[in-house]
Amino acid sequence: MKNFNYIDLIGFLAAFLTTIAFLPQLYKTWQSKSADDVSLIMLILFILGLICWIIYGIEINSIPILLANIITFIFNFLILILKITYKKEK
Amino acid sequence: MKNFNYIDLIGFLAAFLTTIAFLPQLYKTWQSKSADDVSLIMLILFILGLICWIIYGIEINSIPILLANIITFIFNFLILILKITYKKEK
Repeated sequence: MKNFNYIDLIGFLAAFLTTIAFLPQLYKTWQSKSADDVSLIMLILFILGLICWIIYGIEINSIPILLANIITFIFNFLILILKITYKKEK
Repeated sequence: MKNFNYIDLIGFLAAFLTTIAFLPQLYKTWQSKSADDVSLIMLILFILGLICWIIYGIEINSIPILLANIITFIFNFLILILKITYKKEK
């Protein structure tokens, strides 16, 4: 742990913030039952990117990359499911 | 370049997809002049996270981390500006 410094801390904070950021979006979508303003193409491209990050994380054996991207994938996949569900209900 | 393999390619594809994903969101918001369904808290947390990634990229001298996160930052900052602007106009 002697090499754990403020740079690592910034990295962990970065990963934490860009992961947790999608939780309020998920909550908002679930509450408002609407995600019309959320781009479907964005969600699809982002989810495909996250799948690539997960494969990359497995290949280079990086637990932080894996963990952050699996959680972000789950949040965004749920947002996508909600968006499609609410669209159908209209 | 001899170590450049399919794992690196997956990494580049991952970075490309999770960066470019926000361009359709920016375009959609600009076209529809509405971002009510896009969570403000998500945008703020995500942008703060990207700033941390940029600082981290500078500190560890990683051009890919810097490049991907600066572009993603610009896209998300513009989405935030549009969201606030359209909210005020209503």
